[in-house]
Amino acid sequence: MDNGVFLTLEGIDGSGKSSQAKLLAAALRELGHNVVLTREPGGSLGAEEIRKLLVEGDPNRWSPETEILLFYAARRDHTERTILPALERGDIVISDRFADSTRIYQGAVRSDLRETVDAIHDRMIGFEPNRTFVIDMDPEAALARGLARESGEDRFEDFGLDFQHRLRTGYKGLVKSAPNRCVLIDGNRAIDEISSEILKLAREIVG
Amino acid sequence: MDNGVFLTLEGIDGSGKSSQAKLLAAALRELGHNVVLTREPGGSLGAEEIRKLLVEGDPNRWSPETEILLFYAARRDHTERTILPALERGDIVISDRFADSTRIYQGAVRSDLRETVDAIHDRMIGFEPNRTFVIDMDPEAALARGLARESGEDRFEDFGLDFQHRLRTGYKGLVKSAPNRCVLIDGNRAIDEISSEILKLAREIVG
Repeated sequence: MDNGVFLTLEGIDGSGKSSQAKLLAAALRELGHNVVLTREPGGSLGAEEIRKLLVEGDPNRWSPETEILLFYAARRDHTERTILPALERGDIVISDRFADSTRIYQGAVRSDLRETVDAIHDRMIGFEPNRTFVIDMDPEAALARGLARESGEDRFEDFGLDFQHRLRTGYKGLVKSAPNRCVLIDGNRAIDEISSEILKLAREIVG
Repeated sequence: MDNGVFLTLEGIDGSGKSSQAKLLAAALRELGHNVVLTREPGGSLGAEEIRKLLVEGDPNRWSPETEILLFYAARRDHTERTILPALERGDIVISDRFADSTRIYQGAVRSDLRETVDAIHDRMIGFEPNRTFVIDMDPEAALARGLARESGEDRFEDFGLDFQHRLRTGYKGLVKSAPNRCVLIDGNRAIDEISSEILKLAREIVG
């Protein structure tokens, strides 16, 4: 990992994390940093191909266990080909979603899957971001703001509002369990207020 | 697993295991058994799609670790959708390759990968075939007989003869380490001699 800094953005569908990832990348570039903006699932040539298997077709085509293995195949490729080379160059890597998404989403499907994700993560990835910004938002508010649609994450209807509530609870629990890495960001504010706070927190790490 | 019987065929490329799997399936059907003949990677709709990622394109497009995760995503789908339902019906499942292929091939690439495969297997699959027939053949003989080509496994040239020798050693080690499950079959004989021996051994299990 050397000199680079690895930042991730997490949150429920429509919480605005993709927009915030872009704003953060732009602001840090403005400050003269080399920034690699990436996303999951995907973020490398191979991982984008695996992404297609995950996001296309019937949402129930894979069992949760098969899905975890596909997510980790994509994550391993993304890590090897995009994230680690950038960190070794000393760049800042900003990823719109990373391992926490798999932890929280699969954990919301069935609690025992969380342990499976953690075990595979530790074996096949073995490191965590330097800082994770978890954008917290009420699922109804996210739905009303239409962010789910705008972000291309058209999954509210697939997953249902109740599932989004479980995700929110999962993310809050994550921040409590890893307070040195994760920061809860109040997403119920104007976009530029949120981006200012994330930039300030990011600058504490990147210098 | 209930009443079904799960048989697998393994061996180096061109050892004739695909032909033997077909002959065994035909002979057991002749005896009145319900037989599901399948193969890896693949064997279910989803796994066949993952197979494409594994066998198409540049052979070096994935790292060994990513490849292991893709193989296990395919294997989990194959297990859930094809193998376990058939075993639950009481059928005989014959698979041309299964987990041992990943163990032996990845182990021949780098010995520490074998442990990774075993750990993921135990967590994501958790069971072994009732009997595994490992067809042993000298790589030079397999090449001379042209079986590698005939079987569509055109990988001698990709992998090299030296690698096939390491695979052979790996398979022999496997049989020694799991003598209750694995049987070494001498593949340097006429096809019908080999198939008779495999059928005889299979009938000891399926009754």
